[in-house]
Amino acid sequence: MAGQPTRDDKFSFGLWTVGWRAADPFGEPTRSPLDPVEAVHRLAELGAWGVTFHDDDLIPFGSDDAARERHIERFRVALEATGMVVPMATTNLFAHPVFKDGALTSNDRGIRRFALRKVMRNLDLAAELGARTYVLWGGREGSETDAAKDVRAALDRYREGIDTLCQYVLDQGYDIRLALEPKPNEPRGDILLPTIGHALAFIAQLEHGELVGVNPEVGHEQMAGLNFVHGIGQALWAGKLFHIDLNGQKGPRYDQDLVFGHGDLLSAFFLVDLLEHGGYDGPRHFDYKPPRTETIDGVWASAAANMRTYLLLRERAEAFRADGRVQRAMRRAGLDELAVPTLADGETPADLLADRTAFEDFDPDAAASRDYGFVTLAQLALEHLVGAQA
Amino acid sequence: MAGQPTRDDKFSFGLWTVGWRAADPFGEPTRSPLDPVEAVHRLAELGAWGVTFHDDDLIPFGSDDAARERHIERFRVALEATGMVVPMATTNLFAHPVFKDGALTSNDRGIRRFALRKVMRNLDLAAELGARTYVLWGGREGSETDAAKDVRAALDRYREGIDTLCQYVLDQGYDIRLALEPKPNEPRGDILLPTIGHALAFIAQLEHGELVGVNPEVGHEQMAGLNFVHGIGQALWAGKLFHIDLNGQKGPRYDQDLVFGHGDLLSAFFLVDLLEHGGYDGPRHFDYKPPRTETIDGVWASAAANMRTYLLLRERAEAFRADGRVQRAMRRAGLDELAVPTLADGETPADLLADRTAFEDFDPDAAASRDYGFVTLAQLALEHLVGAQA
Amino acid sequence: MAGQPTRDDKFSFGLWTVGWRAADPFGEPTRSPLDPVEAVHRLAELGAWGVTFHDDDLIPFGSDDAARERHIERFRVALEATGMVVPMATTNLFAHPVFKDGALTSNDRGIRRFALRKVMRNLDLAAELGARTYVLWGGREGSETDAAKDVRAALDRYREGIDTLCQYVLDQGYDIRLALEPKPNEPRGDILLPTIGHALAFIAQLEHGELVGVNPEVGHEQMAGLNFVHGIGQALWAGKLFHIDLNGQKGPRYDQDLVFGHGDLLSAFFLVDLLEHGGYDGPRHFDYKPPRTETIDGVWASAAANMRTYLLLRERAEAFRADGRVQRAMRRAGLDELAVPTLADGETPADLLADRTAFEDFDPDAAASRDYGFVTLAQLALEHLVGAQA
Amino acid sequence: MAGQPTRDDKFSFGLWTVGWRAADPFGEPTRSPLDPVEAVHRLAELGAWGVTFHDDDLIPFGSDDAARERHIERFRVALEATGMVVPMATTNLFAHPVFKDGALTSNDRGIRRFALRKVMRNLDLAAELGARTYVLWGGREGSETDAAKDVRAALDRYREGIDTLCQYVLDQGYDIRLALEPKPNEPRGDILLPTIGHALAFIAQLEHGELVGVNPEVGHEQMAGLNFVHGIGQALWAGKLFHIDLNGQKGPRYDQDLVFGHGDLLSAFFLVDLLEHGGYDGPRHFDYKPPRTETIDGVWASAAANMRTYLLLRERAEAFRADGRVQRAMRRAGLDELAVPTLADGETPADLLADRTAFEDFDPDAAASRDYGFVTLAQLALEHLVGAQA
Repeated sequence: MAGQPTRDDKFSFGLWTVGWRAADPFGEPTRSPLDPVEAVHRLAELGAWGVTFHDDDLIPFGSDDAARERHIERFRVALEATGMVVPMATTNLFAHPVFKDGALTSNDRGIRRFALRKVMRNLDLAAELGARTYVLWGGREGSETDAAKDVRAALDRYREGIDTLCQYVLDQGYDIRLALEPKPNEPRGDILLPTIGHALAFIAQLEHGELVGVNPEVGHEQMAGLNFVHGIGQALWAGKLFHIDLNGQKGPRYDQDLVFGHGDLLSAFFLVDLLEHGGYDGPRHFDYKPPRTETIDGVWASAAANMRTYLLLRERAEAFRADGRVQRAMRRAGLDELAVPTLADGETPADLLADRTAFEDFDPDAAASRDYGFVTLAQLALEHLVGAQA
Repeated sequence: MAGQPTRDDKFSFGLWTVGWRAADPFGEPTRSPLDPVEAVHRLAELGAWGVTFHDDDLIPFGSDDAARERHIERFRVALEATGMVVPMATTNLFAHPVFKDGALTSNDRGIRRFALRKVMRNLDLAAELGARTYVLWGGREGSETDAAKDVRAALDRYREGIDTLCQYVLDQGYDIRLALEPKPNEPRGDILLPTIGHALAFIAQLEHGELVGVNPEVGHEQMAGLNFVHGIGQALWAGKLFHIDLNGQKGPRYDQDLVFGHGDLLSAFFLVDLLEHGGYDGPRHFDYKPPRTETIDGVWASAAANMRTYLLLRERAEAFRADGRVQRAMRRAGLDELAVPTLADGETPADLLADRTAFEDFDPDAAASRDYGFVTLAQLALEHLVGAQA
Repeated sequence: MAGQPTRDDKFSFGLWTVGWRAADPFGEPTRSPLDPVEAVHRLAELGAWGVTFHDDDLIPFGSDDAARERHIERFRVALEATGMVVPMATTNLFAHPVFKDGALTSNDRGIRRFALRKVMRNLDLAAELGARTYVLWGGREGSETDAAKDVRAALDRYREGIDTLCQYVLDQGYDIRLALEPKPNEPRGDILLPTIGHALAFIAQLEHGELVGVNPEVGHEQMAGLNFVHGIGQALWAGKLFHIDLNGQKGPRYDQDLVFGHGDLLSAFFLVDLLEHGGYDGPRHFDYKPPRTETIDGVWASAAANMRTYLLLRERAEAFRADGRVQRAMRRAGLDELAVPTLADGETPADLLADRTAFEDFDPDAAASRDYGFVTLAQLALEHLVGAQA
Repeated sequence: MAGQPTRDDKFSFGLWTVGWRAADPFGEPTRSPLDPVEAVHRLAELGAWGVTFHDDDLIPFGSDDAARERHIERFRVALEATGMVVPMATTNLFAHPVFKDGALTSNDRGIRRFALRKVMRNLDLAAELGARTYVLWGGREGSETDAAKDVRAALDRYREGIDTLCQYVLDQGYDIRLALEPKPNEPRGDILLPTIGHALAFIAQLEHGELVGVNPEVGHEQMAGLNFVHGIGQALWAGKLFHIDLNGQKGPRYDQDLVFGHGDLLSAFFLVDLLEHGGYDGPRHFDYKPPRTETIDGVWASAAANMRTYLLLRERAEAFRADGRVQRAMRRAGLDELAVPTLADGETPADLLADRTAFEDFDPDAAASRDYGFVTLAQLALEHLVGAQA
């Protein structure tokens, strides 16, 4: 049986998750504001390790310096009292109307400059609180009509913005890396850097790309019908999985931010398997929304559910990997063979061309009859997931 | 009124498009085989400039050397007779059962080697026929279950495969560049490099990335609900739009390969506008399927329809850009302002931090009231598209 | 050239459309409240014929009777001053937190009763203002988890609710029909009666089904990837198209409520063609949202754009139908033949069985070669749409 | 632990499932033809109870009468030898090119008549073999362009066709009911009766609607992003769930026909719960495709996996319902309260209007604070599904 979450599990939550007041496009808030200090204490009691925030979650937009300091100080006291850490912080570049056409890629230059300053200011606070990752979700960097945005110019400005922020981090000597969070749409009709792939490709064009990675979110990729596990695989392959947002989603539709596992459960199982066995040792960060139907009791129940599901899936994934039948099925499927280079050590194209066994004497019909047994492997995974092979 | 297509329009078609026999997952072929020579002649008569092919389109899989030469010779004669060029070629790595688990990333090493050889062989032919672009669509590089494929190992093999092919091109001195064609799914449950973004990100990890770009297809991105014009914008921005596949699709569903424009027409309009005014001078390649309901007459009618729609949209886009009201609306929308760097020339993060007008004295509420007039611009585009502002 | 909208065009708008303050799930309002009286005057000036409303659009939730009367009176004066009519009204059963689990199908019986009373109250006002259609959108009748709602019990309550409202209409002698508005999801994870089909099927189970039809919305069906024109076709076929909500959407994603035509333009063309030539004579009601980027100027520009696009498409559809080539292509496609019954007049199954020409002597291969020419017809439509065949 | 399947579980398979040769739009078959007799024997050994077929699965299209009888006789012998039943049969109205524009709604009247005869012929065989359900999937009843099909005329012909078939069943005295199978698209761009709802609505317009129900398929509804459990709930509510096709799908994309459970597993859990506790006692019919990667061993492994997953989910659902905490959570959620009519026995609209507690004295803010605990219930379901609460 999966145990209780501990600090070693590195579970973290955004203040905006449990603190979401549950307004939606068609409805007013159903919950009262939640004091960030209360959130820190309750999350700590539930077994979380870290808490994250947008600047405006902690310090209401427009606060003067004195109010700002009071908000920060109360938060810091709560962190110290609970031992909670701040592994990540981020900027709200989407709520205020000034960002209605985006922030770093707004068509308005003054707004772009303001946005940069807003990020820089919160980078200072992030560094002060010990965050090692700074997330940038470009939720409003986009458009509703292709007539309104020259994508190439927008990417120029996006690159300039991220390069400037990297330079600032370097100038200040902060031990912080940036993580871009892709999303295909909502709240804009189309958002720039819509998927993990687009964000990775963009990073390859940066001046300080080594400081920049991605913060993929389960639901965001699934809104495009993409396989999240594949996306995480490519991010890990590129050495760019700096952070991750765990939640649930039911395919292409509005951004649901369900509890982790309450969407595509098979995918969640394979995701946990990959995170646990794929070399990722960063935070397990839940970026979800307690459904609008829930009271504050449901808020805490849902927070606990995220962690509990993760632990259950971790347990199932471990049993799956330890099962001898699974190991045999993986060999039969050729998973080890895929890890073997296609060319021999030092083999050149000319060598390959000279190898008659590779083509002239190769029997495609015989090779076509190979029995990979993928369905057997898939079913073993499903049965482990449902605890039928424990 | 848009005129007839000419060679200067650089319209090209795959042999497999007009030659598609119209079998689908639930139905038998409705059309007879089409001789590639006939295809070349008819396409030339319709005003096309080029023809492209998979190896197996021209030379049936398993042909002996003598038969192979005869097929090539007949094709060459047709090219010479018509003046048609071969701007691109590609490999069929998906039809034969041997590729049931992919080609360059098959779990079977022998199949991976065979696939490389199959590509190399057709690269030779492509070079001989003067093709400058060689497309690789990895339609079966993927899986139906996450248990069956270690994505990181698969990407290692994919990179090794592409690097090997680049080396071969360099070794042979071919004047050819490779273009990867992304697709999210079908025929595999999930395909590696599912979008333009993922392909661009992959290219950034290659040894000879400078030789490799993308060949995006309208419908493939739209199957993931992504904005194709945005994707092309990012590919152009990265200098990687080596080729393009034009067709139509109605959102996330099976790969429809409709006639260009017979899907999302507004997007097609903005796409033509971008291709014509964004610096792309490569082929306008139609990768569509004449619907299964059509006889051979419908095949040629649909081929002509692709070109005619492109020309109509080009005419509409030109009128749109030339319209003074549009130009004013673009300025109001800030499109020119987005082209201005956010930082002044030589401005450092420290300088930005010292600029009180950027933050301390910036009035976000005033800036929020900016009237971009995006809806007006979108409506002007729509009215030009429907010919109401000519 | 399409002219200006006139009252004969029967264009109507919801108060909540031009009055939307442009808050979204990630952002605060960007526009000030709009006085309904101002809305009526401006819409009338733009050429609209009618205005519609939710109870709470006109009378803020919780207003006392005196305030309520004042709001109504001001509205009535504006209607009289402008000659605008109120063809439809509806109830806000989604914004207040009390409806967080739905209204007519809330798991809470007291809430269900309150919801019925809220509808009945506004039915009285609708009747008083001369509305002939009363829309019920069940936006919160649904759930996020299948564990939370017994769909069969919920449909029992839904039926009971609608039957009760029909009885009330009959008891009061109101000249009003109800129209159910389907939507697949958002704001609930899954909404009951998710498509036109589900709503029509539900209506067939009602006690007073003759009083109840549908109010389909372009974007709602397209959120499920469904063909809106087909859905309207089935609703017309069933005699149930009581009202319609026109707007734009770009496939399965959040509910965009774009300007009519600013989504799938080809579908909008065929929709206008069907409405104009398919016997629908009800209001052309725009249920859209002026994008959040727009100021009040963009609000009015977008309102005008909806009507202008409709008129342009109507003009294009008329030219399409009048074109002799189109008429010939339709005959070739067999559109007239589809209108001919499959059986002869009075023919029985036994007669059909005895007709050897229907089976034993029927040559399927010959029949398979029929040339319907669908692609030619589709291209003629596209060319008429873009004004190239005028 | 879930046991082995038995005949009491009523598991059935189509001949076309295990017999699928695994050709897809981009690939040739990977498997040899499977003798229907072999299929019957192997399925029986695996624990299946029934087998179903399209006419052409059993008797190749175009067979003469003698060949036809031989095919039927061999099949009958296999049924008798194994005790397998034929609970359902259906017609192939999609593979032959003659049906390229549909069958019952083809624009060609001769083809419509031929299609009716083809169905009637196989109805005779279905009756002879004891089938009680006859499925009609209208996979090609549709179009790629709205110009090609008048939906209202097509629905007239569809109704005429189904009415004719019902009359034939009545005339012959067959103990058979028809079940329509909806699907949104593929192989046609848009298919008529795209969802459960549209099919139910259509049935309500038939002359002999009492003989006609639906045969929903998991993946078909999920291709439209719809909640399959909700759809089945509405079909049961209407008394129209005559048959069901179980498989797996990963959201809006091509029709995957995965093994049951290998798509959305949480939905599969709630589906089994509903089928087992919702009064459905018909066949549990698997309409899936063994993936193209699999050899014949994978075919049988996948057939067994379908049944095994169903049994596991049934076991989990039983434990879920038996759990006292679940029962308490259901009461807290108001599931029992939803079963209570909203109006008191005999209460009229006038009575409701007179009840001040329902509106005037109702406190919406107090009611809004109700704690339904839906998240707790959802998490209990998930934990039962993964065997963590057994």
